Amino acid sequence: MSIIVQKFGGTSVGSVERIQNVASRIIEEKERGNDVVVVVSAMGKTTDTLVGLAREITSQPSKREMDMLLSTGEQVTISLLTMALIQSGHDAISFTGWQAGIETESVHSNARITNIHTDKMAAHLQEGRVVIVAGFQGMTETGEITTLGRGGSDTTAVAIAAALKAERCDIYTDVDGVYTTDPRYIEGARKLPSISYDEMLELANLGAGVLHPRAVEFAKNYQIPLEVRSSIERVEGTYIEEEASMEQNLIVRGVAFENEITRVTVFGLGNALTGLSSVFTTLAENHLNVDIIIQTQTDQNTTNLSFSIKEHDLEETLAVLERNKEQLNFTHVEHESGLAKVSIVGSGMISNPGVAAEMFEVLAQNDIVVKMVSTSEIKVSTVVDGENMQKAAGVLHTAFHLDAVKMEEITL
Amino acid sequence: MSIIVQKFGGTSVGSVERIQNVASRIIEEKERGNDVVVVVSAMGKTTDTLVGLAREITSQPSKREMDMLLSTGEQVTISLLTMALIQSGHDAISFTGWQAGIETESVHSNARITNIHTDKMAAHLQEGRVVIVAGFQGMTETGEITTLGRGGSDTTAVAIAAALKAERCDIYTDVDGVYTTDPRYIEGARKLPSISYDEMLELANLGAGVLHPRAVEFAKNYQIPLEVRSSIERVEGTYIEEEASMEQNLIVRGVAFENEITRVTVFGLGNALTGLSSVFTTLAENHLNVDIIIQTQTDQNTTNLSFSIKEHDLEETLAVLERNKEQLNFTHVEHESGLAKVSIVGSGMISNPGVAAEMFEVLAQNDIVVKMVSTSEIKVSTVVDGENMQKAAGVLHTAFHLDAVKMEEITL
Repeated sequence: MSIIVQKFGGTSVGSVERIQNVASRIIEEKERGNDVVVVVSAMGKTTDTLVGLAREITSQPSKREMDMLLSTGEQVTISLLTMALIQSGHDAISFTGWQAGIETESVHSNARITNIHTDKMAAHLQEGRVVIVAGFQGMTETGEITTLGRGGSDTTAVAIAAALKAERCDIYTDVDGVYTTDPRYIEGARKLPSISYDEMLELANLGAGVLHPRAVEFAKNYQIPLEVRSSIERVEGTYIEEEASMEQNLIVRGVAFENEITRVTVFGLGNALTGLSSVFTTLAENHLNVDIIIQTQTDQNTTNLSFSIKEHDLEETLAVLERNKEQLNFTHVEHESGLAKVSIVGSGMISNPGVAAEMFEVLAQNDIVVKMVSTSEIKVSTVVDGENMQKAAGVLHTAFHLDAVKMEEITL
Repeated sequence: MSIIVQKFGGTSVGSVERIQNVASRIIEEKERGNDVVVVVSAMGKTTDTLVGLAREITSQPSKREMDMLLSTGEQVTISLLTMALIQSGHDAISFTGWQAGIETESVHSNARITNIHTDKMAAHLQEGRVVIVAGFQGMTETGEITTLGRGGSDTTAVAIAAALKAERCDIYTDVDGVYTTDPRYIEGARKLPSISYDEMLELANLGAGVLHPRAVEFAKNYQIPLEVRSSIERVEGTYIEEEASMEQNLIVRGVAFENEITRVTVFGLGNALTGLSSVFTTLAENHLNVDIIIQTQTDQNTTNLSFSIKEHDLEETLAVLERNKEQLNFTHVEHESGLAKVSIVGSGMISNPGVAAEMFEVLAQNDIVVKMVSTSEIKVSTVVDGENMQKAAGVLHTAFHLDAVKMEEITL
C-alpha cells in the first residue's frame, strides 16, 4: 500500500462547500487503494481575520501569542474536514501539529521542522483511517506551539511525505500547475508538464508563489516527487522531480518577476576588506533580507555597495544603516524605489553559455535598461524599472520560445 | 504571596474592548500584590458560530472532532488577552488546556478533570507572570483534546484554584452576584452577600445558571472560597463558602425556577420489584437525564411511574421507551408538556421542619396546583403548570421574606 500526502491550501478549504469538495478528492485517492495523509491550511481569510483582531489590541503582538492565535485556524479546518469524511462513511481522524508529532526548533512565527514523530500517524493509517493534519504548525521540545511562516503548510506536507516515505506529495491549489510565467500578466504563458526541483526552487524564490521554496528544498533533499494541481478541475498538474523531461530541449523553462524592489547604495565604505561583510552582517542581525548585491571599488581605500531589498523593508534598512554609520564607516546612502526583478530560469543554462548575453540583448532591443544583474547556474535575474516589468517578462518569454502555440497558427 | 484565580465568561471577553477591560481587572488584582491565574471562555458567540459550521457539514458530528473544533475558541481568547496584558507592560503567558496540564478522563464533549499538573503554571507564577489558561478544555493521557461540557470554564477555574491552593476563585460574569431569585422575572429579588456551597449547589442545579454545579461541587470538596461578581461594575459580589453567615436567620435563601419541563408517565409496569431500576438504567444508558421521580403502586403486580425531563429530551425518551417496551414490560406511556419547576432552597430547612408544608400552603392559597414534588435536606422542588411559574416564584419569594425592602417603606 502506497502512502500519498495531499495538501490543500486556504482557498481550497475556504467554505463548507469547498471542504466537502476536498473530502471527495481525498476519497478518490483513498479508493485507488492508497493510504492518504492530508495537510490543510486555515480556511480562506481566517488568518487575516485573526491578525486583524491582534492588531486591534497591539501593533507589536508577542510572536509566541501570535502563534497561539494563528494555529487555531488550521485546527478548525482539520475538524470540519474530518467530520465531512466521517459523514460520507469514511474513517478519518484529525491531528493538530503537536498531535501529529511535528517537532520544530524553538523559534516563534518562522520555525523550522526538526523532527517528525510518525508513530501516531502510522498507527492510524495502519487501521485504514485517513489522517488529517493541521499544516503550518508544530511544537517545540518544551511544548510550545510554533508556526512555520509563509507557505508553512507546503512544508508540513512535504516533511510528512518524507518522514512517512510517501510515494508522492500532491499540492492542491487554486492554479492547475506551474506555468512558464504568470498567466495573469503574460499572454502565451504555458503550463509545464514537469520541472526539476532546482528550477522550481529558483522559480519559487523568484516570486512565482505556487509553492514555498522551503517545501521544494525539503522535497529535493528527500527526493519526494511533488505534483502541483488544481483542487477544483480534474486535470493533470505539473510534476516536480529530480530530472524533469527535457521538454523540447528548452534551455529556459520559465520567466519570473516581482515588483516593489528598491536598490540601496552605500557610498564610500572606508574598509574595502571588511566593509562588505560588516554591512550584511548588520542587516542580517536585524532580520533584513538582501537579494542582489553589487560591489564597486572606487579607489584604493573606499568601496561603493549596491543591494536590492523589498520596498517594505526600506525604512528599517535605512534606520539600521544610520544607527551603525560610525561602526560601518561609510559616507552616505542613496536609494531608488519602484524597481522590479525579472528572471529567467532553466537547468539547460548549465550546458549552454551565452544565455545571459542573449537575455541582455533582448532587453536592450526593447529599450529596457538593466540596473542590476545576478546569476546562478540555472537562472539570470535583472533589476529593471517597475514600469518595464511586464514588457520585459513578455519579450523574454517570447524570445526563449516559451509562448504557447496559438490556435490560429496551427489550424491551417 | 497569595494566588487568586479569576474566571471570565464569554460575554466578558466578547469583544476586543471587553478583553481590554478584563486586562485592567487582572492588573488591579496583580497590583494588590497577588499572583494571578486567569481562566477564560471563548469570545461571545464564537462557540455558536463553530457549532453552526459543523452543523452545515453533518447533523451528527463526531464528538472527538467537535472537541477539536470548539477548543479553538478559548485558544483565541487566551492569546488576545495575553497580548493585551503585554501591551500594558505586564508580563503574561497563555496556555491551552493541555499546556496548562489539565488532564481529563477519556470522554469527549463532557470529560471530567482527573488531574492537574501544576509545574508549568507554578513556574511562571514564580517568575512574576500572569498565567492565562483556556477554560473548558483538557487533554487525556494519550494526548487527545477533550472539552468539559456546559459551564466547563467554571470547573477549570475552580480545579486550578484547588490544585494551586489558591486563596480564592473569583467568577466574573455579566451579573453582579447570586440573587434570592431571578431578578429578570421577579420583582424584589435581592443580591445575597454570601451563600453556602450546598445552597449554591441546589440553586445551580435548579437552573439559576450563574455557576456550573460541577464547579460548585469541586469548590466544596476542596474548600475553595468562590466569589461571583460583575466583570463590568466594581461592586462586591456574592461569596460562596462553607458556612454562609445566617443573614437575618432566613430559613429559605433563594427561589429557583425553570420552564420547558415535561412529565412522562409509564403505566402498568409488570415487574414491581425491578421495574423502577430497569426503566432508569435504560434511560441513563441513552444519556437521558431524569429529574423528579414518582412511583405509585396500583395493585399487587403493576406499578405506574412518573418522571420529569427537559422538554427537548422528550422525543428521544419516548423512542427509547418504545424500543425497549417488551423488555421493560409496561402497557403504555403518557406525557404532559409545558410544565415548570419551582424550588425553594436554604440550609436552614434542616433544623426547621414544616417548610415544605408552608410552601404547599402558599401555593394552594394562590390557586397553583402542584403536580410533582421532590425534597432534599435543603430544598423543596415542585412541578407546576408553566403559566404559573412566575406567579409561584413571586409568592414564595414574598412568603419566605426574601423581598428587598422597598425604598418607600423606609423613607418615612
